[in-house]
Amino acid sequence: MKPSIPKGTRDFGPEVMVRRDYIFDTIRAVFRKYGYAPLQTPSMEKLNVLTGKYGEEGDRLIFKILNSGDFLSKTSDEDLQARDARKLVPRISEKALRYDLTVPFARYVSMNQGKLVFPFKRYQIQPVWRADKPQKGRYREFYQCDADVVGSNSLIYEAEFLAIFDEVISTLGIDPFVISINNRKILSGYAEVIGQTEKFTDICVCIDKMDKIGPEGVGKQLGARGIPTDAIEQLFEMIQFEGNNQEKLDFLEAKFANSESGKKGVQEMREVLNTYSSFSRYKGEILFDLLLARGLDYYTGTIYEVKAPGSGIGSICGGGRYDDLTGVFGSKGLSGVGISFGADRIYDVMDFYGLFADIDLPGIKVLLINFGEETLAKCLEVLNQLRQEGVAAELYPDSVKLKKQFGFADKKNIPFTLMIGSEEMETGLFNLKNMETGEQEKLALTDLIQKMK
Amino acid sequence: MKPSIPKGTRDFGPEVMVRRDYIFDTIRAVFRKYGYAPLQTPSMEKLNVLTGKYGEEGDRLIFKILNSGDFLSKTSDEDLQARDARKLVPRISEKALRYDLTVPFARYVSMNQGKLVFPFKRYQIQPVWRADKPQKGRYREFYQCDADVVGSNSLIYEAEFLAIFDEVISTLGIDPFVISINNRKILSGYAEVIGQTEKFTDICVCIDKMDKIGPEGVGKQLGARGIPTDAIEQLFEMIQFEGNNQEKLDFLEAKFANSESGKKGVQEMREVLNTYSSFSRYKGEILFDLLLARGLDYYTGTIYEVKAPGSGIGSICGGGRYDDLTGVFGSKGLSGVGISFGADRIYDVMDFYGLFADIDLPGIKVLLINFGEETLAKCLEVLNQLRQEGVAAELYPDSVKLKKQFGFADKKNIPFTLMIGSEEMETGLFNLKNMETGEQEKLALTDLIQKMK
Repeated sequence: MKPSIPKGTRDFGPEVMVRRDYIFDTIRAVFRKYGYAPLQTPSMEKLNVLTGKYGEEGDRLIFKILNSGDFLSKTSDEDLQARDARKLVPRISEKALRYDLTVPFARYVSMNQGKLVFPFKRYQIQPVWRADKPQKGRYREFYQCDADVVGSNSLIYEAEFLAIFDEVISTLGIDPFVISINNRKILSGYAEVIGQTEKFTDICVCIDKMDKIGPEGVGKQLGARGIPTDAIEQLFEMIQFEGNNQEKLDFLEAKFANSESGKKGVQEMREVLNTYSSFSRYKGEILFDLLLARGLDYYTGTIYEVKAPGSGIGSICGGGRYDDLTGVFGSKGLSGVGISFGADRIYDVMDFYGLFADIDLPGIKVLLINFGEETLAKCLEVLNQLRQEGVAAELYPDSVKLKKQFGFADKKNIPFTLMIGSEEMETGLFNLKNMETGEQEKLALTDLIQKMK
Repeated sequence: MKPSIPKGTRDFGPEVMVRRDYIFDTIRAVFRKYGYAPLQTPSMEKLNVLTGKYGEEGDRLIFKILNSGDFLSKTSDEDLQARDARKLVPRISEKALRYDLTVPFARYVSMNQGKLVFPFKRYQIQPVWRADKPQKGRYREFYQCDADVVGSNSLIYEAEFLAIFDEVISTLGIDPFVISINNRKILSGYAEVIGQTEKFTDICVCIDKMDKIGPEGVGKQLGARGIPTDAIEQLFEMIQFEGNNQEKLDFLEAKFANSESGKKGVQEMREVLNTYSSFSRYKGEILFDLLLARGLDYYTGTIYEVKAPGSGIGSICGGGRYDDLTGVFGSKGLSGVGISFGADRIYDVMDFYGLFADIDLPGIKVLLINFGEETLAKCLEVLNQLRQEGVAAELYPDSVKLKKQFGFADKKNIPFTLMIGSEEMETGLFNLKNMETGEQEKLALTDLIQKMK
């Protein structure tokens, strides 16, 4: 039997894993510094927790788990004969794999509302599963790295997330990158100003496509959705305004004189940017993006997106404020704001820019050459001392030809080899070889340990 | 809607997560030092990779994933009308959740045999899923932490695993604990000596139960499986021998004079223990356990089990050598040896002994009290500087009553609060309060940072 893995899934071998861990560790360290605490939820959720939260398309893409044992016991003959797969699902499946980390988080908050101390800040780094058609950069199992705070309206958190984006992406070495920010209330403002409040969602959906289909395409789609030409013109006048962030805010403030929502959006944006000015800056550019809409419709305030222009890869982070995420589970009035790092896309961007080459990733530092019985005890002693000092070290398991042992070090990219033969036993000086330069030097144990650390 | 989670699964809130991460991080750090490299495999495997590997009972306990889309398209009306759940599974499900980390590892090695450098050492820390009946200490989703090396017969690895058990469990603070070791070849020796080689598996299964049912029970079960009384007596004479590890080896060597397999087992055990004597010792006792059998029948050499006697919790680690794990996937002749840490049980043991109390777990170190607009910019500046120095810090988001803000710090177990009011703004000395002792002191920023680090 020739084995394989399900399409859209991946094995992560050692080389890729140390890089992925580097990304996760970097994100985790920043989340922690900012006061976010870890949470993990089960991979499986009850089907009724997940269905209806991601739209009809989303429901289709949820991986369902077959009930164990006699899963047919709850189905009638009629159910089976009807051959209606969708109707049959809830009779043979009660559980499904999580589709994102947001709904499980909302479910957790709702279940534990009485015990939690608000504002509650949590981060969560776990895989999610979607039965999407696999393609380049799109997988059926992938990791999300989320941080959310619920139970506060404070805009300090919005500013903090800008700082988190900036610190994480800069620390990873991605440069340049742009953190786009907008506010759903500003999008409402557009709709109010052009007298099309009932077309709010259509407007969001259409202007979100500007990158892909250009202004002409967006105009056509808006028209097709019943928005009059003069309203579209008015809209374009706003969303195509050019200037720096301050200029955009001043421009919109004037435009929004008669839009409460729009004014509120501008005011919130000013406060977020102002608060953010107290934080340290790394390399990220903050762009007040008048077109940013984000597809997900539970956002109600600030929205974010991070991109690495030039990498050819889409957004690597996103997020926003939502006013009532837990409402569907019975916990009303808990406002929250959250962000998500797409680890897989970040990996692709870092790989594209060759950033992994410069990072000191964990791996075996030194291979001890095996000269057989006579020197084995000494070898084990040195091996052991290196490890006790925290140096990842390895002894070749058999006393085979040197060529084979050095070849092993080469293929494994182990930077140093150490020879403890009979001569070295006598002198107490061990022969350390730099596998890249070929240089050799004789070192006493303490010097060796110092050098390896 | 009142949400809940599937039975046998758990949410891990912040307090539990930092403890779990501490366990995972400790295990990972030791694995790395010993030259094990990380691997992750997909949560889903193809059904045919998993079925038939864990026995009939195991096959039943594998969680199957319903095919997406019209999962009924491959079923005939006859299939459905037969209502045979087991027969229907392969028609409506192609994938399943992994049941352990060993089979996916074997599948990975087999798929990548040409690319891997042997001996190949990998560790893998991921959840596994089993549709077992949930009960205390048994979950449907739980983590395994495995390390395996394949492609070498060297017994150095066996000794290394003893050292890894010892270092990890000691570092976690569990004391006392016992690392039991035996060898399948010694078990074969028993069977040969008593002339019951064809009853090898029965003997393993029965003596494995000594803890639970006592010698009388084991004797009865052996009898019920057709082993004659005098053979049982001979067996008991061997397995009930008392003495230290050396005495046991000498005793068995004499007994195994006519058993090739037994002699080989004793010889291997001597070599493993001898090699291990070159490694550092922590707190673990190594017990050559004449009764240890381990249920899994792919083991062919050394077998391990680790227990914390007195905790009332079963084995917390296990492992052993297998000669042909990848054979089923077409890669013959790759001997390997591996171990597994049961993170959930280790957690329970540590909790039982109250070990988490003494560990400095990551969390928010200091809460900045919010005095409102006037001092906000200064607060954010200090907050930011603390974080830049790696101190996990948090600003209360609103300038509400002090009592509420201090109460928040209390409930969150944040050890320090920092007050930056108008007075502190003038003097440049900030008021730091130790929330446990109530002590307050005035510190300049640099001293504050030093203290928090």
